[in-house]
Amino acid sequence: MKLFGYWRSSATYRVRIALALKGIDYDYEPVNLLKGEQKSAAYLSKNPNGLVPTLITDDGAALNQSLSIMEYLEETFPDPSILPRDPVGRAQARAIAATIACEAQPLMNLRIQKYLKEEASFDDNAVKDWLNRWPGSAMAAVEKMAAEKAGAFCVGDAPTMADACLVPQWFGALRFGVDLSGLTRLNEIYERCIALPAFEKAHPLNQPDAVKG
Amino acid sequence: MKLFGYWRSSATYRVRIALALKGIDYDYEPVNLLKGEQKSAAYLSKNPNGLVPTLITDDGAALNQSLSIMEYLEETFPDPSILPRDPVGRAQARAIAATIACEAQPLMNLRIQKYLKEEASFDDNAVKDWLNRWPGSAMAAVEKMAAEKAGAFCVGDAPTMADACLVPQWFGALRFGVDLSGLTRLNEIYERCIALPAFEKAHPLNQPDAVKG
Repeated sequence: MKLFGYWRSSATYRVRIALALKGIDYDYEPVNLLKGEQKSAAYLSKNPNGLVPTLITDDGAALNQSLSIMEYLEETFPDPSILPRDPVGRAQARAIAATIACEAQPLMNLRIQKYLKEEASFDDNAVKDWLNRWPGSAMAAVEKMAAEKAGAFCVGDAPTMADACLVPQWFGALRFGVDLSGLTRLNEIYERCIALPAFEKAHPLNQPDAVKG
Repeated sequence: MKLFGYWRSSATYRVRIALALKGIDYDYEPVNLLKGEQKSAAYLSKNPNGLVPTLITDDGAALNQSLSIMEYLEETFPDPSILPRDPVGRAQARAIAATIACEAQPLMNLRIQKYLKEEASFDDNAVKDWLNRWPGSAMAAVEKMAAEKAGAFCVGDAPTMADACLVPQWFGALRFGVDLSGLTRLNEIYERCIALPAFEKAHPLNQPDAVKG
């Protein structure tokens, strides 16, 4: 399999975590978002929305959207699982993943921040208010959702799709100065996750296209 | 089961479609978003993000997030299925659902439009530009994703989660004046879907809390 992605993309980072948790080997092809490579005709033929990541399966299918790719990996490489066994636990892990992917990240990602600053003339304070209002309040909801069912991780005692979404979102929120104070449960889970080898392997700074310093 | 929702909520509409396609009976409890009922302590205890829908299972578990709820329904009431059988087809249906739920709807929903108008002083043209830029371009991507695999519906010859997301998004986009011209494939699928009894049953105007006229 081949993963097209970008080191600092939150959605790519989710899929790298899922691949690493399952111990799946893959080739990695960087798509430089700062250079606009996601808008090339070659890339758009694989991902019509011009977003990363795209996973190319061994049969050549081009799969889009991190939530969908993680479900594909779970179905085709079921062991170890990245979902709880019981239906309600699975729903809770997926609900946390979806809260991050549908409520937090879409309102924090770079293209939206760029639009707000460059086309809507938001100043730094207005951007900060936006980030705390939308991604910030979504993460506060996740803190409560995790507390209901948490063991060592977001749902239970093994990492799931919820943790694969939490860690990249937390990493990005720290980078953009979103106020995460008070989210003590999520902070504990984040620290526990990033200490694991699979999360370390998936970390943005450990990718070949990382720009350090 | 009991569904807490709002007649015109896109995410509630998705879940109503999934329930209707599977022929599942349920109680419906309206949450009036215009009156702020989603922010009551009683509702927040079921849905910490203050969003609709919430599905209460027969065992009393409160499930959040439409994508997760649809997966729960698929796992616990597998027949008829709302996903294709093959892993790549399943991934493609989920990718369309996720493109709508993660790229289109979060940037079109009412709380964001309200913020842009009331707190960021967007005028009507600026809101229109925003809606065409983000939800509009996501739908243009879905048009291409659907064309790759479409039979009668978004992926194959039976309605899936992709169609359960498409129809509410299309309905909302028409309401808000998003430019959908040129998306002929999706328009055909939308028309085919809304002619089916399950989609008719799930339609906003056919809910007990609908405000008509």
